[in-house]
Amino acid sequence: MSTGQAILLISCIDRPGIIARVASHLFALDCNIITSDQHRDNEDGHFFWRIHFESLKKPVAELSHDLASSLPDLMRWEQLKFEVYDTARRERIVIMVSRLEHCMIDLLSRHHSGELEADVIGVISNHPDLEPLARPFDVPFEVIPVLKDKKGEAESQLLERLVALNPDTVVLARYMQVLSGELLSRWRKPIVNIHHSFLPAFAGSRPYQQARERGVKLIGATAHYVTEELDAGPIIAQATTPITHRDTVADLTRKGKDLEVTVLAKAVRAHLKKQVLTHHNRTIVFE
Amino acid sequence: MSTGQAILLISCIDRPGIIARVASHLFALDCNIITSDQHRDNEDGHFFWRIHFESLKKPVAELSHDLASSLPDLMRWEQLKFEVYDTARRERIVIMVSRLEHCMIDLLSRHHSGELEADVIGVISNHPDLEPLARPFDVPFEVIPVLKDKKGEAESQLLERLVALNPDTVVLARYMQVLSGELLSRWRKPIVNIHHSFLPAFAGSRPYQQARERGVKLIGATAHYVTEELDAGPIIAQATTPITHRDTVADLTRKGKDLEVTVLAKAVRAHLKKQVLTHHNRTIVFE
Amino acid sequence: MSTGQAILLISCIDRPGIIARVASHLFALDCNIITSDQHRDNEDGHFFWRIHFESLKKPVAELSHDLASSLPDLMRWEQLKFEVYDTARRERIVIMVSRLEHCMIDLLSRHHSGELEADVIGVISNHPDLEPLARPFDVPFEVIPVLKDKKGEAESQLLERLVALNPDTVVLARYMQVLSGELLSRWRKPIVNIHHSFLPAFAGSRPYQQARERGVKLIGATAHYVTEELDAGPIIAQATTPITHRDTVADLTRKGKDLEVTVLAKAVRAHLKKQVLTHHNRTIVFE
Amino acid sequence: MSTGQAILLISCIDRPGIIARVASHLFALDCNIITSDQHRDNEDGHFFWRIHFESLKKPVAELSHDLASSLPDLMRWEQLKFEVYDTARRERIVIMVSRLEHCMIDLLSRHHSGELEADVIGVISNHPDLEPLARPFDVPFEVIPVLKDKKGEAESQLLERLVALNPDTVVLARYMQVLSGELLSRWRKPIVNIHHSFLPAFAGSRPYQQARERGVKLIGATAHYVTEELDAGPIIAQATTPITHRDTVADLTRKGKDLEVTVLAKAVRAHLKKQVLTHHNRTIVFE
Repeated sequence: MSTGQAILLISCIDRPGIIARVASHLFALDCNIITSDQHRDNEDGHFFWRIHFESLKKPVAELSHDLASSLPDLMRWEQLKFEVYDTARRERIVIMVSRLEHCMIDLLSRHHSGELEADVIGVISNHPDLEPLARPFDVPFEVIPVLKDKKGEAESQLLERLVALNPDTVVLARYMQVLSGELLSRWRKPIVNIHHSFLPAFAGSRPYQQARERGVKLIGATAHYVTEELDAGPIIAQATTPITHRDTVADLTRKGKDLEVTVLAKAVRAHLKKQVLTHHNRTIVFE
Repeated sequence: MSTGQAILLISCIDRPGIIARVASHLFALDCNIITSDQHRDNEDGHFFWRIHFESLKKPVAELSHDLASSLPDLMRWEQLKFEVYDTARRERIVIMVSRLEHCMIDLLSRHHSGELEADVIGVISNHPDLEPLARPFDVPFEVIPVLKDKKGEAESQLLERLVALNPDTVVLARYMQVLSGELLSRWRKPIVNIHHSFLPAFAGSRPYQQARERGVKLIGATAHYVTEELDAGPIIAQATTPITHRDTVADLTRKGKDLEVTVLAKAVRAHLKKQVLTHHNRTIVFE
Repeated sequence: MSTGQAILLISCIDRPGIIARVASHLFALDCNIITSDQHRDNEDGHFFWRIHFESLKKPVAELSHDLASSLPDLMRWEQLKFEVYDTARRERIVIMVSRLEHCMIDLLSRHHSGELEADVIGVISNHPDLEPLARPFDVPFEVIPVLKDKKGEAESQLLERLVALNPDTVVLARYMQVLSGELLSRWRKPIVNIHHSFLPAFAGSRPYQQARERGVKLIGATAHYVTEELDAGPIIAQATTPITHRDTVADLTRKGKDLEVTVLAKAVRAHLKKQVLTHHNRTIVFE
Repeated sequence: MSTGQAILLISCIDRPGIIARVASHLFALDCNIITSDQHRDNEDGHFFWRIHFESLKKPVAELSHDLASSLPDLMRWEQLKFEVYDTARRERIVIMVSRLEHCMIDLLSRHHSGELEADVIGVISNHPDLEPLARPFDVPFEVIPVLKDKKGEAESQLLERLVALNPDTVVLARYMQVLSGELLSRWRKPIVNIHHSFLPAFAGSRPYQQARERGVKLIGATAHYVTEELDAGPIIAQATTPITHRDTVADLTRKGKDLEVTVLAKAVRAHLKKQVLTHHNRTIVFE
């Protein structure tokens, strides 16, 4: 009889016996491994492990407590880090948007149909335009305008609201403002962004214009974690689609929307399932 | 110090403790797990596991012997099957072709550049046409003609040659003859075939013609294990590419060649790396 | 000075001089060709031509009248058919859905952002479930329940509503009822359907279940015109996406939704732009 | 009765009547248009036209002469340029390679199977390694070594050989030397290169290493015309393929080879069919 499921993420310097020891420990704690994914970075010897297991006797909360106290002794390996997530606990998400609706509607629609294992607890925008489209999904919509000469004030207000809402993850679903290093240094939880190019090509503003000017034959979209350096954070997901000389910037914008929606949803989903680990500004994605 | 590497494939009915027990056993045998991939079929409870490990003390041959005798006792699980492969032992492959060269040249070229972890020990064709193209790759090329009213004799000759060459795997690289159930019942080792459609659509002959007639907007290629039922064996790899109304059957044939080459190479590579397990006429591919 | 734009679709048996004669005629009528796409079916000698042009003097309505009377004399070619569409006239669309929301929301959202060059004049469903999600888009939502033993009555009611709404095109956006031959013989205007497989594979019901059972390595979606034979009408657009042994039917359903949305939108868009011509149960798509 | 076929490429500033006038002129010269593709660059009003036609009476050579003298009078449009190609005349190609065989073998194999409408008149390499692999294709293989401190001499020798061989097009099929501006200013005919990244990302050396370091989730290949600025010429074709955190640089190199082969072949084929026009460092590709 399962009393709950959890995900255990482990990273450390690889040494023989890790799998044997942890798997035996979980077995002794009456846990059954459902899926297990691992990766070894051969360049620096780091080992990454994601274990999805069910607890057969103890409640997951109690088990997490046991693991937190027992693992450090069990795995005296260098640079050990680990986290336990109760899969019954739903993550809390805040979506941020500007004027373009496609990514917001897509995420709300997936949320509505039960596809996202999380609760969208709010939408924050610097414009009021999209409020009517969010309404049928029963998610609070807040407007925090960003005036050209008062960006600092807007960011203070944004930070205050994030602190109050307390999401686990913020998703920038075509939010057209750059978040300052100041804000990022104070809000340390994950922020997922969608950029409308196949990074590192066409970082910064107007990527479809840049793509048209360079004459590329495909356009792309990139979902990544936000870091201080613009469009340079760890990449979670990317995709491209073919274009031709006939496509104007408007056509690229239209074709790109489908990519943005798909890539962002894929990245958010993987992030919520704790399938994404970061290392050296890159990601390991256990799909 | 590693004394060699091996791949252990296990399948059985899933029960708690499998990973703990096998991982501990490998650790006790001084083996270090390099990669581990597992899958549970939730419909029938079957568990599949591929472990790539290095032996730190014993030679792999000796270790394989140890595992063969110890695993059945260790894992008293229902429907247990397991195999150990020494990665130092290179598989022996025979390629079979007819008149179209692209798949043969591609495989020989990959073999030549060291991409295939196997030895191509021969090419067998029902036509002499491609012999000159195989020559620079230093692989024996044999012709076994298949005359319309003497198919049985040709198959006997083929079987005789296969028995003599003793390959681990036969690759049908656009071999345009159907192998009879009779032959398949006598040659039980894996045969990988490339079919030029996205099966199950357009099975049988002239799939590009069929695709053109139905007016599909993409064509495909499918690599699968050969079974008695034509084009119905377990699928290993598939891919598709877009086409338009402008494409004639000749265009489809040309575009399809690129797909066939890529899909067959991908399947053969996965097969050689023991990444492919079959179950219920489907495959599990641990990439 | 342009007084409007139009699209001229021509099909006939190909003969030398067609382009010269029609282009000269358009020039004489003070029309400027913006784009021109043509195709010759080499199997039966049919010629297809789509001309997008602007009228520099006369209003398009007047010009259409001129063309209608002059073209038959100008082009005494066999099997001549032609149509003139004023691009200023927006097509009228009715969307039909059942309980799955993704295709409906996507189309309404594209309509809302101005991407579809048409007016969605109504949504008809056999279930009331999706009504709240259609509300913010200001499109009337009607429910015509289909009871198991009263399908005929439901179809009569549907036909009546279609006649009253008078759409140019009906889009089946995951409408889970089969339209009878009877209804199709009385409603002759185009109906675009999305089927969740790469036809001709997995026609009929539960294609994701079928895909899972066959063990394919990619799933697809197909947008096609509805004809009497189920899932056998002319294909407008198709796409596929890779899957693995890990994907359950629920995963296929989720992954497939993204394909369905994209493929249906692409097909509807091409249809509305008069880029799709049908011939021998196949389509010519001038993208 | 056709006496031959030709391709007419026209570019000029767009004005009403171009199509009417040229199509009528071709009709008067007893020519029948087989396919016609056109494009208007809306940013600068340039018009591009590719006409594939058959001559019904005159030999193509004579016809070309007629067109050369009559078109400038017929089309007094700004910036008019035009070229006539007899499709019976096969282009002459020289392939240049270094040590990696895949692109060379692929092109020679396509040439051998009749897929390329051109004659490969020679392979030039800076290394002798690939000579045996070129042998069965009966194409002369020449070695021009490039010594570190004698690059200038090697280029002189290369230019001399090109002048002697007189190819219409040079294809750099993973030729790992940068051609100097000096050489390019003296050899003005088209040079097609394959670069192993999705340009503009990862230009320059070791793109797979760069891709691995940045942590992208797809790799690409780009075929482009060579210009003085490295990897910055007009792009003809591009494609990408997904990668994961598991892929080492060696894996990227292997996966990328399939892309390189396909993208280069597609670009060379389009170039040979005169489907590629360049404009503002971008290409128009009439597929």
